[in-house]
Order: sequence, then C-alpha cells, then structure tokens
Amino acid sequence: MKLYFAPGACSFVPHTLLETIGEPFEPVMVKLHKGENYSPEYKAINPRSQVPVLVDGDQVITQIPAIVNYLNDRFPQLGFIPGESMARTRMFETLAWMNSAVHTTFTHIFLPHKFAESDAAKAEIKAFNTNVYRGYMGELDAVVEKAQAAGKPYLAGDKFGPLDAYTITLSRWGGIAGIDPTAFPATWAFVQRIAALPPVARAIERERLQLNLYKPA
Amino acid sequence: MKLYFAPGACSFVPHTLLETIGEPFEPVMVKLHKGENYSPEYKAINPRSQVPVLVDGDQVITQIPAIVNYLNDRFPQLGFIPGESMARTRMFETLAWMNSAVHTTFTHIFLPHKFAESDAAKAEIKAFNTNVYRGYMGELDAVVEKAQAAGKPYLAGDKFGPLDAYTITLSRWGGIAGIDPTAFPATWAFVQRIAALPPVARAIERERLQLNLYKPA
Repeated sequence: MKLYFAPGACSFVPHTLLETIGEPFEPVMVKLHKGENYSPEYKAINPRSQVPVLVDGDQVITQIPAIVNYLNDRFPQLGFIPGESMARTRMFETLAWMNSAVHTTFTHIFLPHKFAESDAAKAEIKAFNTNVYRGYMGELDAVVEKAQAAGKPYLAGDKFGPLDAYTITLSRWGGIAGIDPTAFPATWAFVQRIAALPPVARAIERERLQLNLYKPA
Repeated sequence: MKLYFAPGACSFVPHTLLETIGEPFEPVMVKLHKGENYSPEYKAINPRSQVPVLVDGDQVITQIPAIVNYLNDRFPQLGFIPGESMARTRMFETLAWMNSAVHTTFTHIFLPHKFAESDAAKAEIKAFNTNVYRGYMGELDAVVEKAQAAGKPYLAGDKFGPLDAYTITLSRWGGIAGIDPTAFPATWAFVQRIAALPPVARAIERERLQLNLYKPA
C-alpha cells in the first residue's frame, strides 16, 4: 500500500492506522506549501488535489471515512471501526463531525483563499472562524471527557482508531490558529497519551510534528 | 422512530430512507427560517441546532453518515450501505465528499453569516462559493455518468441509498444558488427518476419540494 500524505495534514489519520497495522507501506510525502498537490502528476492520482490518498493495487481511495472503511475491512482484527452496531454509529457520528465541521472550519483559518478573494474578506473569515474553532475545541474536550467518564481508553471504545488520531490533528491545528491546546485539559492529556503510542509516535516522527504549536500573541 | 427534519435540508436523505423502510415513523418538522432549531427545546435534543436528528427509543443520533449506519444495521435487507467491501468503501468516499465538501460549500451561499459578519465579506463569500458549487455540480454529473456507464441503477450499486437522495438535495440547492440544474443532463435525468420512486415521492410531498428552483437572473 502507498499513502500520499502531507506533514501535519489530516492524512495523519490514515498514517497512524497504517503504522498500527504494522505491514510495510510506502509513505509518499506531498509538499502542499510547494503546491505539489496541483502538479499534473498528483492530479492524475487525485484530481481534487487533496491528501490523503491510499493506493492499494488498482484501488485509489480518497476521503478519510472511505480509507478507514477500507483498512478496517482488510484488517478487521484491529477494530478501527467498532463491531458493535451502536458503537459503530457513534464512531461515524463523531468522525463526520470532525470531518465536515471541525476540519472545514480550520480550512477557513489556514487557507482562507479557498472561500474568498479580497484581503479584507480573507482576514475576516480567518478571525471569525478562529472563534468558531475555539468553540469546537471546547466541544472536543467534552467528547474526550465523556469517553473517559465511560471508562473508554479510546474515543470509540477499547481500540485505537481514527477519532484518536484526528483529535491530535485538530488539537495541533488549534495551536496554529492561536488557540492554546493546553487550555483544554482533557484533550491535551489525551493527545499526549495517544501521541506516545509507538505506532502513532512513528507517524509523528516521520511527519516531524510538534504537538503544541501555540505561540502567545 | 422520530425524525427531526427541515423541508429542503439535508434531512431529506434520512427522510427518504425512512420512507423506503416503510415502517411507521414520526416526522417532526423544524422550521429553520423561524429559528426553531435554536429554541431551548430543540437544543435539548441537539445542542448543535442542526437537522437531521433521528430518535429511536433512548438513542439520539445526529450526522447523516451515522444515521445511515444506524438504519442500515437495523434494516440490512435494504442495503443502504453496500455489503461488498469495495462498494462500501466507494459509498463512504462519495458520501464524505457530498457531506464535507459539496454540502458545506452550499452553506456559504445559503447561510454566509456562519462564516463572516460584514455585509461585504458575506456577499463575497456567497459569490465565490457559488462558483465553487458550480464546479461541484460538474463533478457530481461525472459521478452520475460513471455509475450509469457501469450499469448501476443507483449511485452505490443496485439499491437505493443515501447518495441518490443526497443528489436530489444538492441539485435542488444548485437551483437556489442560481445554477440551472438542467445544465447537468445526467444529474437532472437521474434526479427526476429517483424523485419518482414512491418512497422518495412521499418524502418530497411531505416536504413540499420542487426539484427545480432555478430562476434565470
């Protein structure tokens, strides 16, 4: 299998799953800041110019929920998607929220040119969505607290999975957005614990990630 | 089961699934234009003030992919999620794209105040994202064409499911955004065919929807 990833992007999620699987895979770094994702070569792989892309033989798979489903089907023993119906429903619920609400809000802060052209509008979009993102960090903290109160070592239950890795990504992005990740104690403790899992630590090392990118203004 | 829906919103997707299931359910209309989703009563059901919400006994389920998983688990014979692994992966891939990319782009056009405050920025966001949405309508048309070329009667295979209903919703929203749905011939023919399926037609009637809301400028 081959994973196209960009350091610090949401491709970190499948990156950690592949490291957890433990079979050899080929990580291919895509430098977004150099626009490599807009090259004709990359667009031939993913016309939408996004990461992650998982390639397995003839199959080219995009979108985190789809990659998660694919890896879960190939390696069911790892339980990336819970087997029990209601736990699975809750996993999809949180994954959809992370993917369609929290993630897309960060895109407004990091890549405001994807939503408007003028400098004034981009600055406003950035500031406005930083506040929205701060609210989401509070919601995420409640999600982490709730899982812990229910005695779950991971957000979807008793197995490491996409929600845990995504939490690291979203917390890191908060730091980039000027939101102190340590201000969300449950999330911050959880992020440090998950980051220390050997497969996750390997993905972090390959991507050369710092967990806390917050710089006080 | 109880479905909280708003006419024309993405809650149309689970609405059509419930009609397809054919068991009695209680549809509860939430008037977004009257702000009913921000009432204390509704926030007690869904603090995020969104539709859809599916309630089944003690379970309160939000987010389309989660509701789809729940209904698929309860009624597996309907095949809302394909049973075959790769077909399932492709279903999640398209659903995630519709949900996190196309849907959220429309939100910028319909509810620009969710992304900026000033009138100037909101107008710019609306115009910019209308162009993005037009591009997505072209991509959606290619998705429909590809399914048809592969001999699939529905977008995920041989069973009606969430992708088909979402296509109606996204095409309708295009009309609201000033994008003529008939300009995408594969999608427009598909939308009319799916809308005529009796369970889908019942949901359309309850929500009093028109398929083509486009008005030439």
